[in-house]
Amino acid sequence: MKKRILSLLAVIVALLVWLPAAGMAETAAKAPKYVFMFIGDGMGNPQVTATQYYLGSSEHPEATVPTAAQLSFTDFTELGLMTTYDASSFCPDSASTATSMASGEKTLSGVINYNVDLSASFKLITEYAKESGKKVGVISSVSIDHATPAAYYAKVQSRKQYYDIGVQALTGTTLDYLAGGGFLKPDGDGTQPNLLTLAAQNGWNYVNTNADIRALDAQSGRVLAINPDLQDSKSMTYEIDRVRRVAAGEDILSLADFVTAGINVLDNDNGFFMMCEGGKIDWSCHANDAATSIWETLAFSDAVQVALDFAAQHPDETLVIVTADHETGGMTIGFATTAYETHFSYLQKQQMSFTDFDNTVATLRDGKADFTAALAEIEKAYGLTVTADQPLTLTTEELDSLKAAFQLSMLPEEQRALGDAEELLYGGYEPLSMAVSHIINNKAGLSFTSYSHTGLQVPVYAQGVGAEDFQGLYDNTAVFTKTLAAMGLSR
Amino acid sequence: MKKRILSLLAVIVALLVWLPAAGMAETAAKAPKYVFMFIGDGMGNPQVTATQYYLGSSEHPEATVPTAAQLSFTDFTELGLMTTYDASSFCPDSASTATSMASGEKTLSGVINYNVDLSASFKLITEYAKESGKKVGVISSVSIDHATPAAYYAKVQSRKQYYDIGVQALTGTTLDYLAGGGFLKPDGDGTQPNLLTLAAQNGWNYVNTNADIRALDAQSGRVLAINPDLQDSKSMTYEIDRVRRVAAGEDILSLADFVTAGINVLDNDNGFFMMCEGGKIDWSCHANDAATSIWETLAFSDAVQVALDFAAQHPDETLVIVTADHETGGMTIGFATTAYETHFSYLQKQQMSFTDFDNTVATLRDGKADFTAALAEIEKAYGLTVTADQPLTLTTEELDSLKAAFQLSMLPEEQRALGDAEELLYGGYEPLSMAVSHIINNKAGLSFTSYSHTGLQVPVYAQGVGAEDFQGLYDNTAVFTKTLAAMGLSR
Repeated sequence: MKKRILSLLAVIVALLVWLPAAGMAETAAKAPKYVFMFIGDGMGNPQVTATQYYLGSSEHPEATVPTAAQLSFTDFTELGLMTTYDASSFCPDSASTATSMASGEKTLSGVINYNVDLSASFKLITEYAKESGKKVGVISSVSIDHATPAAYYAKVQSRKQYYDIGVQALTGTTLDYLAGGGFLKPDGDGTQPNLLTLAAQNGWNYVNTNADIRALDAQSGRVLAINPDLQDSKSMTYEIDRVRRVAAGEDILSLADFVTAGINVLDNDNGFFMMCEGGKIDWSCHANDAATSIWETLAFSDAVQVALDFAAQHPDETLVIVTADHETGGMTIGFATTAYETHFSYLQKQQMSFTDFDNTVATLRDGKADFTAALAEIEKAYGLTVTADQPLTLTTEELDSLKAAFQLSMLPEEQRALGDAEELLYGGYEPLSMAVSHIINNKAGLSFTSYSHTGLQVPVYAQGVGAEDFQGLYDNTAVFTKTLAAMGLSR
Repeated sequence: MKKRILSLLAVIVALLVWLPAAGMAETAAKAPKYVFMFIGDGMGNPQVTATQYYLGSSEHPEATVPTAAQLSFTDFTELGLMTTYDASSFCPDSASTATSMASGEKTLSGVINYNVDLSASFKLITEYAKESGKKVGVISSVSIDHATPAAYYAKVQSRKQYYDIGVQALTGTTLDYLAGGGFLKPDGDGTQPNLLTLAAQNGWNYVNTNADIRALDAQSGRVLAINPDLQDSKSMTYEIDRVRRVAAGEDILSLADFVTAGINVLDNDNGFFMMCEGGKIDWSCHANDAATSIWETLAFSDAVQVALDFAAQHPDETLVIVTADHETGGMTIGFATTAYETHFSYLQKQQMSFTDFDNTVATLRDGKADFTAALAEIEKAYGLTVTADQPLTLTTEELDSLKAAFQLSMLPEEQRALGDAEELLYGGYEPLSMAVSHIINNKAGLSFTSYSHTGLQVPVYAQGVGAEDFQGLYDNTAVFTKTLAAMGLSR
């Protein structure tokens, strides 16, 4: 009896010893091996919700009641909401906000990882990750020296120091994978070494074809992968244009393709930290082009899906964070004259981004086209028509506003007299493209208040190992501290 | 030795038996005795954030960097974000959205607690609460038969059935406390019994003075408490006007006072469920009056604070939920011409709501005043001035827009020719009041896109017993299921 009691007691004691140890093991296992940080530039809640409603309307054209669809990240388990103001403004910029998320510090608009008096630089989440043994990747759909990607590897007093940013990327030791768009200033002031030369000198494997990028793997070394198909300002092509061109037979890499390639390059026994920016959600919202911003958000959602598929294969080792740096444009689902009505299906008619339509406008200008010819191009690109009794029939007022914009757009830029009224109407963009965007937005029941960033709080979606801490209300600087803590690291 | 082992074993066994039981006890204790549901009508994230930034700017006028302040609920532990669309539109109304939160069901805009074909009604969270033994209170700063409060006690095919709603409130058995604004149709069609007569017949204790309302307690019975100071459409006075008049010596009850009185009336051994609506956040945003909406949000925050003070005294028994039914007006922090600048301090100059200024405009019209007299009143009420080089100096364009609005406002309503352009500019409101609001908003760097509700997702802030479940992304119908589950009840 005594023996049996003793052996029972031994089992209990063993259990009592084992249980806390198991608990500790669980705690230790909590640090994710793989961390994905997705930033939708300018992707506030209006952009996400508009995309959900557009997708719901597209997927269920027969629905008699409004139907929302999920994006890849809109059913994540954890949700946060964060303030985005910087040391300059409640309406901040991408340099300061990405700095806050990358370093945990506030700074001025335009500054990347330096303090407000520009006297000291900050240590980055990617540097901590690298020190802990992880590989580091940075992807952007815009130029890879743009403010948001730069904040994850560079420290400069001004975001406009594009060449310096490129030099820091290529000569620094933080990055193992840099991918997406190109460099804005590959030759610096013209006397400085070309960045691709620097890349070669520093052991980078530069790839610039679809085949080479698709073939990347863990043996590819440090990879600089630039999409061969670039649109404006060394950025990847807008998704709405990419999809149209792919449908016509072209082969163009998507943002998701660069996440896939990044995983192939970065995966290793110590794991990785990957930041991926959807940069042209912001650009299209600056230009108040709602449909294009929705397509950009869909492309961003597809890129997140690649990480989720990877996480499904590594369920206890992966943390996925999806957020924005700020909202852009003051987008709203609702407009004064449409009141409670929306028509997301109208946006399906739009065939191209404002950027591609700018090229159409240039062709019209070069050909000294008349307004009738312009209207034909507008109908082809946006579905807006002078044919009576169609959903997208132009009203007299809309035709008047198009004509005024057309007359400005047909002038060489230097001959356009642009006052405050034109600034309010066109925000410095091609007048005809902007007038068309405003008309189709408003017919669909969407609107914008600004051509700049706004002060809206932005959502943080998190899922996976360590995601719980991203729940709740906080400032954008907390994204750094929460990510660092999730990774089991400290300052 | 054997005895000691046995006694140790007994302790361990006792612990093993006791620990799960303690766990169960904890689970059972989780249902909150007191549930507060606060609804800021039209209070999307832009309204909350604008108020945080306004308050931060007011409290720290010396700050050289942007400073945010916390409202009573913006540091709650749990955060959710929910879709608000209804069965009619992505831009829903208060009837359908309050129905979703009160009953867990979607319906058409304008319908309160009936299904989409108007054939069957829903069971309400307040009915479940009542059945479980709790007392029930409903408070609104607008008329107490308005859509949002009505959704917590009435079932009608149209929100416009104000008299029917009143009858259901007073003859039903759900409510123990109904308070705030008045009834819109106290006499029905004129042949029907007066609602106050019905109240008396049904055992209600009707109180209508500040002293009587302040004296309410647990011995007061079923209480109908109507603020003696009402402004437009039987609503309580806008906070911006109440504060000005209180500073001038008047005694006017606040929304917070009605929460205090409600707690005094409702507190009992079985606890209570209280819904409190800040209804004029919505009204001021319909009218694009940013400063007034900020003051309304502050008053709403103060009302929540009363619940938090009560919760602090009942920490393990109280659940506080704060949310909105939808966003109103498409408010943005940011505007096209101010770009990245905001000037929240400008809004401190505004002395009255658009509703009080409408009265000033009526006086100007009755007195056949000239534009100079109007400008003097505008300066008094909003700080906008023709004096040069002031922060709020009116530009030529602003003066032109004021003059156009003034000319319309000086006409009797039936003589005003209002086309689409005027609809876009004034949204059916008093033209001069609206023109002034747009100017001061835009100078401060704020804007609106609509005079209606928008499709923005709205935040849910929760704290206390059972709050964890309110975390994450969901539809507004889930507020019902989550609240019911938190209360330990089921359908």
